[in-house]
Amino acid sequence: MSKEYKGFEPKWHKEAPPKGSYRSIFKWGNPEDYKIPNERLYNMMKKKFGITDDDFKESKELGLEEVKFNKEINLTEEQIDTFRKIVGKDNVKTDNYTRLQVAYGKTMVDVMRLRKKIVENIPDIVIYPRDKYDIEKIVKYCTEEKIPLYVYGGGSSVTRGVECVKGGVSLDMRVHFNKVIEFNETNQTITVEAGMSGPKLEKVLNDAPNLFDAKRKYTCGHFPQSFEYSVVGGWVVTRGAGQNSTYFGNIKDMVMAQEYVTPVGTIKSGEYPAEATGPSIDEIMMGSEGTFGVLTHITLKVFRYMPENQRRFSYIFKTWEDARNAAREIMQSQFGYPSVFRLSDPEETDVMLKLYGVEGTVLDKLMTVRGFKEMERCLFLGFTDGEKGFTKNIKRRLHKICKRYGAMYLTGYPVKGWEKGRFRDPYMRDIMQDFGIMTDTLECSVTWDTMEKVHKGVRKYCKSRPNTICMTHMSHVYPQGANLYFIFIAKMDSIEEYLDYQYGILDNVQKYGAAMSHHHGIGKMTAPWLEGQIGENQMKIFKALKNHFDPDNIMNPGGTLALDLDDSEKRFNKK
Amino acid sequence: MSKEYKGFEPKWHKEAPPKGSYRSIFKWGNPEDYKIPNERLYNMMKKKFGITDDDFKESKELGLEEVKFNKEINLTEEQIDTFRKIVGKDNVKTDNYTRLQVAYGKTMVDVMRLRKKIVENIPDIVIYPRDKYDIEKIVKYCTEEKIPLYVYGGGSSVTRGVECVKGGVSLDMRVHFNKVIEFNETNQTITVEAGMSGPKLEKVLNDAPNLFDAKRKYTCGHFPQSFEYSVVGGWVVTRGAGQNSTYFGNIKDMVMAQEYVTPVGTIKSGEYPAEATGPSIDEIMMGSEGTFGVLTHITLKVFRYMPENQRRFSYIFKTWEDARNAAREIMQSQFGYPSVFRLSDPEETDVMLKLYGVEGTVLDKLMTVRGFKEMERCLFLGFTDGEKGFTKNIKRRLHKICKRYGAMYLTGYPVKGWEKGRFRDPYMRDIMQDFGIMTDTLECSVTWDTMEKVHKGVRKYCKSRPNTICMTHMSHVYPQGANLYFIFIAKMDSIEEYLDYQYGILDNVQKYGAAMSHHHGIGKMTAPWLEGQIGENQMKIFKALKNHFDPDNIMNPGGTLALDLDDSEKRFNKK
Repeated sequence: MSKEYKGFEPKWHKEAPPKGSYRSIFKWGNPEDYKIPNERLYNMMKKKFGITDDDFKESKELGLEEVKFNKEINLTEEQIDTFRKIVGKDNVKTDNYTRLQVAYGKTMVDVMRLRKKIVENIPDIVIYPRDKYDIEKIVKYCTEEKIPLYVYGGGSSVTRGVECVKGGVSLDMRVHFNKVIEFNETNQTITVEAGMSGPKLEKVLNDAPNLFDAKRKYTCGHFPQSFEYSVVGGWVVTRGAGQNSTYFGNIKDMVMAQEYVTPVGTIKSGEYPAEATGPSIDEIMMGSEGTFGVLTHITLKVFRYMPENQRRFSYIFKTWEDARNAAREIMQSQFGYPSVFRLSDPEETDVMLKLYGVEGTVLDKLMTVRGFKEMERCLFLGFTDGEKGFTKNIKRRLHKICKRYGAMYLTGYPVKGWEKGRFRDPYMRDIMQDFGIMTDTLECSVTWDTMEKVHKGVRKYCKSRPNTICMTHMSHVYPQGANLYFIFIAKMDSIEEYLDYQYGILDNVQKYGAAMSHHHGIGKMTAPWLEGQIGENQMKIFKALKNHFDPDNIMNPGGTLALDLDDSEKRFNKK
Repeated sequence: MSKEYKGFEPKWHKEAPPKGSYRSIFKWGNPEDYKIPNERLYNMMKKKFGITDDDFKESKELGLEEVKFNKEINLTEEQIDTFRKIVGKDNVKTDNYTRLQVAYGKTMVDVMRLRKKIVENIPDIVIYPRDKYDIEKIVKYCTEEKIPLYVYGGGSSVTRGVECVKGGVSLDMRVHFNKVIEFNETNQTITVEAGMSGPKLEKVLNDAPNLFDAKRKYTCGHFPQSFEYSVVGGWVVTRGAGQNSTYFGNIKDMVMAQEYVTPVGTIKSGEYPAEATGPSIDEIMMGSEGTFGVLTHITLKVFRYMPENQRRFSYIFKTWEDARNAAREIMQSQFGYPSVFRLSDPEETDVMLKLYGVEGTVLDKLMTVRGFKEMERCLFLGFTDGEKGFTKNIKRRLHKICKRYGAMYLTGYPVKGWEKGRFRDPYMRDIMQDFGIMTDTLECSVTWDTMEKVHKGVRKYCKSRPNTICMTHMSHVYPQGANLYFIFIAKMDSIEEYLDYQYGILDNVQKYGAAMSHHHGIGKMTAPWLEGQIGENQMKIFKALKNHFDPDNIMNPGGTLALDLDDSEKRFNKK
C-alpha cells in the first residue's frame, strides 16, 4: 500500500505484465514502471463518478493471459521466402505474438480490444528492415505483388495510425533502423533513420561533445508526452508537436530534409534553410502518415542544450476568460515565446492542483483567501527555453501580463509537479482502467476567436454524459490561436459506449469550427471527419497525390487519411 | 546637375517617361522618381569597367518612343464578347499598350527587350476582374475554350513569371481586385484580395485604429525591395521574403489561409494556427506561381506596429570568414533574431561604403587606422523589430558576438544610408542602363557548410568576365544557413551576351549546391534548372499536381516551374 493513502486503497496492478501476455502489448512504457493516482484524485473520482470503494475491489480485463489466437497468414510461402531473402530469415517474423504486438497502437480502442482479447487487423508477417536498401526492395516487391505495407515506429499512435487493416506486412522500424547517419554542427542538424527513438536521439545530442567531438551539447527540442516510446519517423509523418513546441516549434518546423521510399521511387527533399522553388516537397510528404511511402531518413534542425536557462512560472487566474486573454496577449506581444505553455480550464485546474500536490498547501490557502474560487480559477504553468537574457525578458514580460489580468504568482512549484508527471501520467491510464475507468484525450486546433465556442460546445457535449470528468487545457500556443486538449475520465464498460461518446466529441469539435487534429494526425480514427474539415476539393488533392505515389493502394491502406473510405464511412456535415 | 558631382556628370535621364512609351512600361516605380549614382560610385564604375567620361556622353535605347507593333489577337470575337459579358466591357482591353504593359515583368531580359522594342509573348486581351465571381467565370470559360490564362499582380517578377508565352488572357489584378475583406484583431490577421499592393496593405494596417476601430496599429512585416510595386498575391505564389524576414519570417510563415480558383474548382485552406491533418494545402499551393490556379484571397498574420523598438546596428569585420562565423553564431545563439540582417562581402562592402556615404567620413578613417583593409573588410548592418526588452537583448548579445569576432561598431549611420535606398536603389538600374550598364541580381539559398563553396565558385565565374563588378551579401538568415545575393554590374550590349553570362551564373549556383531560388521563385527564367535541383522524382510530384489542377495546361503555360518544358530546354547536370 502507498504511504499516501490514509483510507481504503484499491489493489492497483503494479506488477510487470507476464511475458507473452496481452497486457505486455497494451501496457504503456516500461513494463516495470507504473503510476497510481494519489488519494485526493481517487476520492475525487469516486465523488464525480458516484461510486464507492466497493467499485474498486475487483479489477477486470487485466489481459494477463498469454496471447493466443488463430489467424491465417494470407501470404504465400514464396512471398515470405522472398522477404527472408531480402532481410535475412531472422528479420522476418510470423509468430502470433510478434504480429499482434505491432497490430495496434495506443488508441483507447486498441487497448480496449486487447483487454477483451479481440484480435483483428493484424499483419501477416512482421519485418525488421536493416537499412534503406532493404526498405527499397520490400516496397518494390510489395508493389509488384500488391501486398499491403504498414510501418510500425514507436507504436504510440492514438489515431489507429499503424493498424494493419488489410493484413500484409508490417515493418517494425525500432529493431535495426534507428541509427544516426550524420551530425552536422556547422548547420546544427542531425540526420537519423526513421526508427530512432526520442530518448536515444536526445542522448546522442546531449552527448555530442563525446560522440562527435562537437563544441557543445545539443537538444532536439521535441518532447511529446509519448517521447520515451515514440520515434522520429512517427513524429514527422503525423506532424507531431512536443510539449515545448511554443518555443521550439512543431516537428514540421524542425524538419530540414527527408527521404521516403515510395512505390514510384525515392523522394528526397533538399537540404536548404528555405527555398522558393515551387510547392514544398517537405510539406507534401509530412502528414502523409505512411500512405505515400515509407519515411526512411530525416534531417532535423537541433538546438543548443541550455537547461540552465529554463525558468519556471505558474499563475492562477480568477476566470478562464482572464486567463485566455492573458495567454493571447503573451503570444501577441512579440517578446519571444515560453517553451512549455499550459493553461488549464477550471475543471482541469481542480484536478491538476490535486495531481501536482498543491491542494492543501500554503499556496492553496492563499488562493482561497485571495478569492480564486474552485471551479472558476485557472492554472497556468510552463517554463522558458533559449538564451539567458532572452528567457529572463520573457519571464518578466509574462509576469506583467499575468498581473494585469489579475493573476497570482504561484512560484515554480506546480511546474515541478507537472514535470514529474509529464512523461509518466500515461502510466495511470492503464492502472485506472483495470477498474473500468477510461481516460482519453482529444486535441484540436483553434483560432483565438473560435476558442470559446469550441471549448463551451465540446464541454457541453462531454458533460451531457453524467458522472464524467472533462478537463481542457490550452497548449502549443501561437499568436493566432492554440491547441485545445480535451481529456475525459469516466467509468465505461463497452467499446460501443466508448466509441459513441468519442465520436460525439469529434462531431462537436468539427461542428464548432476546430481543426480535427493539432498534432496527433488523422490515422484511421479521425479519418471519417477529415473531408468535413478540409473540404471535398482539398480532399481530392490528397487523392491525386495518393494516386501518383501509390496507385495500387498498398501503403497503409484501410482508411488512413480517408484516402480509401467509402462515402458511407464518412462522418461529417459537408460544408 | 547634382550638387554632388565635382567633375563631369553624365546627362542622366531624369524625366518622367512619355505617356504611351516603351520606357513608361519598363521603368521602375513612380514615373516622376529617379535615383542617380553618386560621384564616388560613378568614378568607381569607370575604373572597374575600364571606361571614361566619354562612354557616358551618349545614352541609348531610352525607349522614349510610342509603343507601336502589330500583333494579331488570336481570340475570336465571340470569345472576347463572352469575357465582356462577364466583367463588363470597360474591363476588357484589347489595345496594344495595355497588352504590352502586362506582358513583361522586371526581369533584366524584359527590360532589354522593351528597350530594343522586341515585342513577343503578349496576351491577346487584358481583363480587370472585379471580384472572385468574375475570376471563377473566367477560369471556367478559359478551361472550356482552352484559352491560356496568365495573372499580372504588381509586375515586379524578376523570373519572367508573368510573361504570356502562349498569348491568351492576362488578368490584371491591380485595378479592382485589391480590397480588404476582413481585419481580425483578435486573431491578428487580415484577409485581402490578391491584387492588394504592399503600401496599401501597410497603410491599412498602420491605420487600423481609424479604419477598424482597432486597439492598436499593425504592420504586415513583409518588405521586399519591390514592396512599393508588388502585390500580396505575387508575394505568396512565388514564396517571397521581405528584407525584414529574419525576424518576421518569409511570406510562407505569414500566410494563415488562402483561396484559389482552379480549373477543378475552388481550393481553400483552413484558418488554423497549426494542424496535423495530412499534407499542407497551403504549402502545396504556395510556390505554384499561377500554374495550378488563380490566387484570389489571402489571410495574413499581422504584427504589432512598434517602430520605436527598431534598434539599428552596423559593424565592420576584418574578413569575410570572421563575418560569416559571427553571423552563424548570432543565428544559433537562441536570443531571438534581428529583423534586417545584411552582411556584405568585401567587394560589396566597397560599393556600399560609397553608396551609403561612409567613404571619406571619420568612420572611414577610423576603419583604416584600425586595420580594416579595403577589399578584405565586410560590412554588417541591420535593425531589430519586436518588443522593447526583446530587441534590447538582441542588440546587446549581437554586439558581444561581433566584438568576439574582431568587429568594430560603426553606429547606426550606415543603416540610415541603407534605409534611404532600400526601396529606391532599383531606380538606379534604369538610369545607368541608359548608358549600357547592366545591373542584375540572382539569389540562392545555402546551408552554412556550403556557403563558402557557393560564394567562391559563383564569384569565380562572375569575375572571369573582365571589367565586371560582382557583389555578394548574405540576408534572410537562419540557424541553418542563409540567402546569398549575387549582384553584378557590367557594361553589356546584347541580350545574347547578357543571357550567356546569367545562365553561367545559374549553372554555377547549381553546381556548387545552392537552391536555385530563396525568394524570387522560379518562373520561366530559372525553370530549366529546377529539375536539376529538386530531382526527377520530385519534379514528377509537381507534374502530378499540375495534371490534377490543370490537365489542359491553360494556367501560366510556357515553361513556368518547368511543368511543360521539353527535355531539350532543360539545363542542368542531372544528379
